[in-house]
Amino acid sequence: MHNTSERSSARAASAPAAAAGERLQWEARYRAFQSRDVSIDMTRGKPCAQQLSLSDALLGLPGRGGYVGEDGGDARNYYGGPLGLPEARRLFATMLGAPAEQVAVANNSSLALMHDMLAFALLHGVPGGTQPWTDETDRFLCPVPGYDRHFALCEAYDLEMLLVPMTGSGPDMAVVEELVRDPRVKGMWCVPVYSNPTGETYSEEVVQRLARMRTAAPDFRLFWDNAYAVHHLTDREEGVPSILALSEQAGHGDRPLVFGSTSKITFAGAGLGMVAASRTNLEWYARHAGVRSIGPDKLNQLRHVHLLRNHSGLLEHMNGHRAILAPKFALVEESLRRHLGGRGVATWTTPRGGYFVSLQVREGCARRVVELARQLGIVLVPAGKTYPLGHDPRDSNLRLAPSFPDIADLAVAMEGICLSILLACTEEPLP
Amino acid sequence: MHNTSERSSARAASAPAAAAGERLQWEARYRAFQSRDVSIDMTRGKPCAQQLSLSDALLGLPGRGGYVGEDGGDARNYYGGPLGLPEARRLFATMLGAPAEQVAVANNSSLALMHDMLAFALLHGVPGGTQPWTDETDRFLCPVPGYDRHFALCEAYDLEMLLVPMTGSGPDMAVVEELVRDPRVKGMWCVPVYSNPTGETYSEEVVQRLARMRTAAPDFRLFWDNAYAVHHLTDREEGVPSILALSEQAGHGDRPLVFGSTSKITFAGAGLGMVAASRTNLEWYARHAGVRSIGPDKLNQLRHVHLLRNHSGLLEHMNGHRAILAPKFALVEESLRRHLGGRGVATWTTPRGGYFVSLQVREGCARRVVELARQLGIVLVPAGKTYPLGHDPRDSNLRLAPSFPDIADLAVAMEGICLSILLACTEEPLP
Repeated sequence: MHNTSERSSARAASAPAAAAGERLQWEARYRAFQSRDVSIDMTRGKPCAQQLSLSDALLGLPGRGGYVGEDGGDARNYYGGPLGLPEARRLFATMLGAPAEQVAVANNSSLALMHDMLAFALLHGVPGGTQPWTDETDRFLCPVPGYDRHFALCEAYDLEMLLVPMTGSGPDMAVVEELVRDPRVKGMWCVPVYSNPTGETYSEEVVQRLARMRTAAPDFRLFWDNAYAVHHLTDREEGVPSILALSEQAGHGDRPLVFGSTSKITFAGAGLGMVAASRTNLEWYARHAGVRSIGPDKLNQLRHVHLLRNHSGLLEHMNGHRAILAPKFALVEESLRRHLGGRGVATWTTPRGGYFVSLQVREGCARRVVELARQLGIVLVPAGKTYPLGHDPRDSNLRLAPSFPDIADLAVAMEGICLSILLACTEEPLP
Repeated sequence: MHNTSERSSARAASAPAAAAGERLQWEARYRAFQSRDVSIDMTRGKPCAQQLSLSDALLGLPGRGGYVGEDGGDARNYYGGPLGLPEARRLFATMLGAPAEQVAVANNSSLALMHDMLAFALLHGVPGGTQPWTDETDRFLCPVPGYDRHFALCEAYDLEMLLVPMTGSGPDMAVVEELVRDPRVKGMWCVPVYSNPTGETYSEEVVQRLARMRTAAPDFRLFWDNAYAVHHLTDREEGVPSILALSEQAGHGDRPLVFGSTSKITFAGAGLGMVAASRTNLEWYARHAGVRSIGPDKLNQLRHVHLLRNHSGLLEHMNGHRAILAPKFALVEESLRRHLGGRGVATWTTPRGGYFVSLQVREGCARRVVELARQLGIVLVPAGKTYPLGHDPRDSNLRLAPSFPDIADLAVAMEGICLSILLACTEEPLP
C-alpha cells in the first residue's frame, strides 16, 4: 500500500492520459537521451563521497596513544565483553531509546546483528519460547513495500513471509493484529522512522498498538530496524516513542529488538552495528555472541566515540549529511512534479528523512520503467525488490535512492527516469 | 595424551618423590610467597603491550586519502563483496596455503568464522551433504588437550564430542580413522601448527592421512585452525603441508576449512579473521555470509595491507613478536627445569612456537595446583579447560600462557607455580 497520507505529501494522479502528440514528444526525447553517454547508479542507499568525507577524521583515529578505553583498558588487546565498550554503548543509547546498560555495540553491521538474532532463535530459541524457532512452520510479518535484505533473511531461512500493507503512518494494524493471532507468527520487520522505501514514520498509535497487541506466540519478536532514527532532511524531525519503554509498560518487555547502525552516519562499510533490548534478551544475546567471538572490534568503537563524542555530537554530525542530501531530495521532488505532475501516471513520496523516494507507477509498469531507464544508462533497483521474494504483485513500486550520484548526474537521471515512466505508463508500446 | 615426543622435548619424570625435609622447605617458601603482594594473570594467550606496539602504526592507518583500494574503490563505502578485498586475500594466501582466489578475509575473528561455518552447516547443510547437520546425532572429533573455545562451539550446539589423544606429532590417527567410519562424525578440530596447548606440530604423515582417510560422512569437514602458522619462537620453523592441496589431490577437496587470523599478529581485539577453502566451499560461504552482511569492514583490511604489505612483510613483522616472546618461553623452560627437573612431579612441553606451554602434573592434582597458585595471586586457566565440557578425566593437564606478563612478573609467577605443583603433587595435604 503506497503512502498517500498528508504526512508524506504524496501527489495524487489527476490528469488524463497523455495525448498522442505528447507521447511522440516523449519518444523523441527518450531517443535523444539514449544517444547521450549516461551511466548513473541509483540502486542503493549508498552515501556519496562528500558525505563520507564528513567522517574522514576516522581514517587517522584513534591515533597513537588513543587506544585506551575510559576504564583504562587497552582496546588493542582482548578487552571487554561481547556487549562492547561502555562509552560506545552510552553514545548510542539515546538514538536507540534505551538506557546504555540495555545496548550492545558490535562490528558492522546491523544486518549482521539481525541475522545473528535470527540464527540464534532458530538454533537455540529465544527467551519466552518453549523451543527453537523452525523454518518448518514459522512465519514473519513483512510490511510492504519494505527492505529487500530483511526479506532475504527470511527467504534464506525458509520463514514464510506474510504481507502487511503500509498505510502512510506505518503498517496496517488491523491486519497485523489479526495475523499475530496465529502462533506460528514469530516476528515482524519494522523500519519505524523514515521507512525504507516509503519514507513514512510510524504514528504513535501504531507504535502503541505494536507494543500492546496480544500475540499468540509467547516468543514473538519485533525486529525494529531504526536505521534512520537521526537521518532528518527537514526541520520537522520525525520520530517514534521508545518501543522498548512502551513494550515494557505493556508487559511485553522482551518483544522488541531495536537495531541501529552508523552505516549512514560515518562509513557505510566500516561502521558499527548496535542493538537495544530488554535485559533478558541482551543476556541471551551476550551468551550466544560470546560463544561466537571473544568480542567485537573495540578500536573501531573508540574511533566512533572520539569522532562523535555523545548524542549531541552525533546530531551535529547528521546536520552535515542533511546539508548534502536535502538538495538532492528537493531536486527529485521538483523533477517528479515538473515531469509527472498532473499526468496520472505516478504517485510518489516526499520523505522528511531517510534515504529513499518511493514511486507508485501504473500497475504492471514498474519492470518496464526499470528496463527503459537501464537503456538510458540509469540503473534502478530491480522492480519487485521491495517485496518478499522479489515479487511486487502489482508490479508498480519503484525505489529511488538519490544519495550517491552528484547533483548534476541526479538531474540527468531524474529526467531519464521520468521519461521512462511517461513512456512505460502510457498505453502504446515502444516500437 | 601429553606430548612426550623428542620433537617437543618433553621432560620425563625420573626422580623419586620429595623427601619430607624438602617438603617442609617448599611449604615454608609457599607461605613466604603468600605474604608477597602478587597479582599475575597467566590465563589467556594474550599479547603483551610491547607486542601490540609493533602494530601501533595501525592506529593512524589508513590515514586521510588512504581509503582507496587497489581497484580504485572507496573502502569507506559499501565496497566489494563478502570475500574481502583482493589485496587482503593475497596478503594471507601463503600463510593459509591457498591461492588468493580461495581465501576470504572477514572481520575479527577466526572464531567468529568457525562459528558461522558451523551455524550455516546446522541451518543449511554443507556441499556434499544431503541435509543440514543436526545436534540430534552429529559428532565432532576433539583432539585433547585442545582449545576450549572450539569445544565451547560444539557444546553450544549440542554436538557430541569424541576425544582423540594427541601423540606429540598430532592426533592419534588410528583412533581418528576408526571414528570417522561413523557417518554421524561430521567434523574435527585441528590446530596443526604449534597446537593449543601442547605446542606440537602435526607430522606430514598425520596431515597426509587426514587428507586421504575415508570418512563415512560425505560432508565431513576438518576445521583446520592454523592460528599459529607464522608464530615461530626458534630458527627451526615448523609447518605443515597445505591441507587444501593434499585433500584436493586425494579427491576430498571440500574437506578442509582453513582458518587464520591476525589476532596474534597485529591487534588481538581489532584484527582480521580469514578462511581458505575449495571454490565450492567458498561459494557456499559467500552465499550465506552475503545474506548476513553486505560485507566485512574493508578499511580494517586496508589498514592491515598497508602495515604488513605482503607475506615477507608479515614474516618480518613476526620476528618482532619472536624477539619479545622467545625470552619468556625460555624463562618458563628454565624455571620448570630448575624447580621441577628430576622430581617426578610433572612433564612439560618446550614448544618451538605458538602461545602455550602444556604441563602434565601428577594425576588428580591439576585442580589443586590452580587453587594453590590462585592463593598466591597467580591466575591460571581453570584445570580441565583444555578438555571438552571442562572435564580432564585425569585432572592432570595445565596450560601456561607466558605472553602477557612482563619478564619480571613471569619469573615470580613461575616460582609460585612451581611451588604450587611441588606441594600439590606430593602426598601430604597442606594443613
